[in-house]
Order: sequence, then C-alpha cells, then structure tokens
Amino acid sequence: MASQTDTDVTIIGLGLMGRALAGALLAEGHQVTVWNRTAAKAEELLAQGALLADSANSAVNASPVTISCVSDYQALQQAFASISDELDGRLLVNVTSGDSAQARDMALWTEQRGAHYLDGAIMAVPTTIGTAEAVILLSGSKSAFDREQSVLDALGTATYLGADHGLSALYDVAGLSMMWGVLNAWLHGVALLRTAGIDASTYTSFAVQIAQGTAGWLAGYADQVDSGIYPPDDATLATHAGGMAHLVEESERLGVNAELPRLFKSLVDRAITAGQAEQSYPVLIEQFTQESRTSSHHGR
Amino acid sequence: MASQTDTDVTIIGLGLMGRALAGALLAEGHQVTVWNRTAAKAEELLAQGALLADSANSAVNASPVTISCVSDYQALQQAFASISDELDGRLLVNVTSGDSAQARDMALWTEQRGAHYLDGAIMAVPTTIGTAEAVILLSGSKSAFDREQSVLDALGTATYLGADHGLSALYDVAGLSMMWGVLNAWLHGVALLRTAGIDASTYTSFAVQIAQGTAGWLAGYADQVDSGIYPPDDATLATHAGGMAHLVEESERLGVNAELPRLFKSLVDRAITAGQAEQSYPVLIEQFTQESRTSSHHGR
Ligand SMILES: NC(=O)c1ccc[n+]([C@@H]2O[C@H](COP(=O)([O-])OP(=O)(O)OC[C@H]3O[C@@H](n4cnc5c(N)ncnc54)[C@H](OP(=O)(O)O)[C@@H]3O)[C@@H](O)[C@H]2O)c1
Ligand SMILES: NC(=O)c1ccc[n+]([C@@H]2O[C@H](COP(=O)([O-])OP(=O)(O)OC[C@H]3O[C@@H](n4cnc5c(N)ncnc54)[C@H](OP(=O)(O)O)[C@@H]3O)[C@@H](O)[C@H]2O)c1
Repeated sequence: MASQTDTDVTIIGLGLMGRALAGALLAEGHQVTVWNRTAAKAEELLAQGALLADSANSAVNASPVTISCVSDYQALQQAFASISDELDGRLLVNVTSGDSAQARDMALWTEQRGAHYLDGAIMAVPTTIGTAEAVILLSGSKSAFDREQSVLDALGTATYLGADHGLSALYDVAGLSMMWGVLNAWLHGVALLRTAGIDASTYTSFAVQIAQGTAGWLAGYADQVDSGIYPPDDATLATHAGGMAHLVEESERLGVNAELPRLFKSLVDRAITAGQAEQSYPVLIEQFTQESRTSSHHGR
Repeated sequence: MASQTDTDVTIIGLGLMGRALAGALLAEGHQVTVWNRTAAKAEELLAQGALLADSANSAVNASPVTISCVSDYQALQQAFASISDELDGRLLVNVTSGDSAQARDMALWTEQRGAHYLDGAIMAVPTTIGTAEAVILLSGSKSAFDREQSVLDALGTATYLGADHGLSALYDVAGLSMMWGVLNAWLHGVALLRTAGIDASTYTSFAVQIAQGTAGWLAGYADQVDSGIYPPDDATLATHAGGMAHLVEESERLGVNAELPRLFKSLVDRAITAGQAEQSYPVLIEQFTQESRTSSHHGR
C-alpha cells in the first residue's frame, strides 16, 4: 500500500476544466499536486502554490486522492498507461466525460489495482467551478464519497447518485436531453409566435410558466411509470394525438419547422396503434424503452 | 343595435367544456342563457338556474356576451348558420379550438356583423374551470376584455395576449409544444436510467431540477434571439453537437429510442453546416423558422 502523501489531492489533466478544478481546491486551502502532458499549462497554478509532478505516476503517488480530467477515455488510457501499483489504497475520482460502459470498465480497472473509484460528470462550465451552481454528479464508492466530502465540496455541489459507477454518465446525458428538450420546444414556440410579430422576450415568460407547470406534473407521472398503470385523469393519448395533429398543421401552414411535433405525433401514433389510446401520457415510456422502429433514421 | 338582454352571458355549446363554463358562471352568481344542438345536455344547468334558449339566434339575443364552445370551426359554422343581426353591438368570445387563421377569419366575420370579438384558447381540463389553475388565453378587443373581466375571471385565469385574434391559438400550440417537449425529454431520461435499474421516481427530482434550471436561461436567450447576436458565453453549438453525438450513442448502445436526440443533432448539424459552430444555442432559431428540409418526413 502506498504511503507517500505530500499533498491532499492530485489533478491529472490541466485543460480548461482541470485548471478550474485545481484552482478551486487551492482557493479552499488544499495542498494540490498537478500533472499535465503539456507542463506549461501548470504555470499559473504553480504561482498559486500547486506542486508540479514530473510524471503521472509520481502525481498519483503524491496524494491520497487523484482527480483525472482529460479530453476522453482514450486520453485517459494514454495518461495512465504506466500506472499500476501507485493507485493501491488510494481514491481515483475520474471526471473525464464518457458513457456508462466506459465508467464501469474504468471502475473494474481501478479496483483491480486496489483503488477506490468514483466516476464523475461535471454539469458546469469551468467559470462556475467552486460555486454551488456547479453540479458534480458522482457514483461509485459511498464511503469514499463521504470521506472526501471536503475535497469534493470545494469543486461545487457534489451529488452522490449510487454505487453503480455508470450512474453519473447516465444522469448526465439524461439531464442534457431535458435541457435540449426545453430549449428546442421553446425555439419552436418562438418561431410560431414570430409569424404574428411577437418577439421572443414577449413570448418567453409564458413558455417558462408552461415548462415549470409541466415539470410539476413529473413526480405524479413517475408514479404511473413505476406502477405501470396509466389512468387518464387529465387527458388520454387520443386527445394528445389530436392536439399534436393541430400543432403539426399550424406549423406547416405557417412555414415553421414541424419536425419536432411530427416526431412527437409519430411516437403517440405508435402507442395508439398498440392499443393505448385511452391511457395517460406516461404510457409512452414503452416507446422510449425500445429502439426506434425506423432504422432508416439510423446513423447521422 | 340589439337591446334584448335577459341574462348576463350566453353559452353556445354544452359539451364537457361548455357545461363547465356555464357551471362556473352560475356558481359566481351570473345570469346565464344556454343553447345546445342536443337540448338534453342542458338539464343539470337548468336545475342550477340557467335559462334554455330555443335557438342559437334567441340565445345570442338574450345576453350582451356570448361564449361559443363547440367541437371545431365546422361545428361553429353550423351552429351560427342563421345568425346575422343578432350579434350587432354584442361581444362574442369564441373558445372553440382552432388555428390562428380560423380565429382571424372568425374575427372578420364577427366584425362584419357589428360585433366585438375575443378569440380564446382554454389551457385546462373541464374539472379545473372556475379555478385559478385554468388558464384562458384571450386575444382581440382589449376594451371588451377589460369590460367583461368579471365574466372572464369567473372561468379561470383570463390572460389577455394582444389585439391580433390569432394570438390565443398560437400561444396555445406553442405552450403544448413546450409541454410535450418536457414530457418527452423526461421519458427519454427515464428510459436511460431504467437500464441501470433506477426507477422513474428516483430519477425525476433531478429531471425537474434541470427543467427548471433550463427554463431560467430562456429570458437571456430570448434577448439573443431578439437581437440576432449569439455570443457563446456558456457553450458553442460545436460543444452541443459533441454532447448530442454522445447522447445518441449512449441511447443506441443501451437499446433506448434515439429518435429525439437524433433530431436534436440533425438541427444542430445543419446550423454548423451553415457556419454557426461557434455561436450559442439560440442561433438555432434560424432552423426553426424555416420549413424542414426533408420533405420525406412530410405527412403522417
Ligand atoms: N470545458 C467544459 O465546459 C466542460 C464541461 C463539462 C465537462 N467537461 C469535460 O472535462 C474534460 C476536460 O475538458 P476540458 O474543457 O478541460 O478540455 P481541454 O481544455 O481540451 O483539455 C483537455 C485535457 O486533456 C489532456 N489530454 C488530451 N489528450 C491527452 C493524452 N493523449 N494524454 C494525456 N493528456 C491528454 C490535455 O492535455 P494537453 O494540455 O497536453 O493537451 C488537456 O489537459 C472533458 O472530458 C470534458 O468533456 C468540460
Ligand atoms: N374537454 C377538454 O378538456 C378541453 C380542453 C381545452 C379545450 N377544449 C375545447 O373546447 C371545445 C369543446 O370541447 P368539449 O370537450 O366540450 O367537446 P364535446 O364534449 O365533444 O362537445 C362538443 C360540443 O360541440 C357541439 N357540436 C358539435 N358539432 C356541432 C354542430 N354541427 N352544430 C352544433 N353544435 C355542435 C356539441 O353539441 P351536441 O351536444 O349536440 O353534440 C357539443 O355541445 C373544443 O374545441 C375543444 O377542443 C376542450
């Protein structure tokens, strides 16, 4: 078991994000060792008191906790190519973006080297790191998360999701899907109102109200999904399909892009074909948990 | 100019919604005349004090304000087939669902008969009519809206949008687009998390947080759209495209429906092809304000 711990925490990777992470830790008074393939990027951090390691190996050796933040998993593999015993007994917190399978593979690799592993996803831009606004999703070892709370809290709002190392990557992409869902629906509405000379700022408070109102229904709809019972207390899928047809027609008539409502309608139509016309909206989960039928859409 | 005003307000159309509207007005102490093609549907309202007219013409004649609520504009035309002078000097509030063009045509027809016109869209189910939860969007004559506030407020949260009679229909469909946008993005996230055994209720508080957070950016993004300048202070379209590729791949790998993220990505890819890779997200408005390029998606 390694014992050399010159500093509290090591950062591997000093891109835009890695430098922000190291800076936030230094600002909170932590002792920080850094390493980057291109050493020059460490300069400002060294002036703030960070120590520069001459290799990834000695960087890992310098602290009980290492945070890795490089471009992707290929970069991670290259940065960690010669690392083995160094991790024994330490904690690796890897916030390099990747998918849930890569996170789970990395957990295996790390545990085979006697280390604890937390996989992380940063839902923030570098400028907000160190503030409560920066949400850092973490999954894996709960005891490691609890033990290193002071290091993790220095980075932002550290949120523990569960023992499965794939969870941070999954919550991350699911959250992005919600973000784009709101943004695109808003833009579609802006385009519709523009045809009547209403500007985006005038329309937007209404859109915000609807987004928030709809978000308020999700907890109740989640109970429907989890129970698999979809009582149409508010509206049936058939009613939704009627409204969607109307939205498609209005969009087409006004020369506004109608791809989004056409996709919405095609999902509902499939559920209706499957006999679910009189169920409530969340029954559509059955369409979302299966691959798209049309393979022609496949690829990009 | 007609002068016969036996009651405060007339309701034409006593389906589920029309009956709820009449009931809410009676509950607030208004004198109400009703008419329906099928007279039997008036029974309960008559017991509550409503008066039954023997024709649409005499119904309109009975009050200074008529609210029409039938299935669609075809039904409206049939119900109003023999109406002409009766409307002179009165107000018609038409809450029958339709598109913005139908609303503007109806305004013209009504004004040719010397009447004031408000077009309405009801964003509520019948059971919430009469409560603040029921949003009634109204557009057209502002003076009529102000004058009849007590009648309109009895129905729910009466919201005036502007003089253009097409606005209620446009806000209505734009709001529905936002609603479906949030619901579908949420379902996509639920499907992703399910692959890791996380249930919808566990995931949902996170989704709500993201939806609300994203809604909080819209006012700032609206300023970008209105100014036509898209400084990428948070993230560029190129960065979004990378994240979307990642979401598509994760969805496909997990066997989850990937149509939604594929559509998101194709919109961003077109903007990048148009040279906007380094602009911020709302520059996509240019994709939404033009018809979809792929006519193969056309039709349903
Ligand atoms: N920036 C954001 O807004 C943001 C937000 C959320 C998540 N993230 C994630 O954070 C991670 C880092 O992003 P970033 O913005 O810091 O990127 P960046 O500025 O491009 O930095 C990339 C980092 O990876 C290193 N690297 C790349 N290939 C390498 C290799 N083969 N061997 C060793 N090191 C290698 C680079 O080292 P060199 O300096 O030697 O090139 C640099 O330290 C990414 O996974 C990103 O998705 C970023
Ligand atoms: N229900 C909702 O949740 C809801 C929510 C928002 C908006 N809306 C809108 O409100 C309007 C009414 O909906 P609803 O739920 O009350 O529908 P509904 O229960 O199906 O009632 C339809 C009404 O239209 C009348 N009608 C149909 N064809 C007619 C014709 N040719 N001539 C005269 N009258 C005719 C019907 O008369 P008969 O009784 O003689 O058939 C009935 O009064 C629709 O535009 C709907 O989109 C409804």
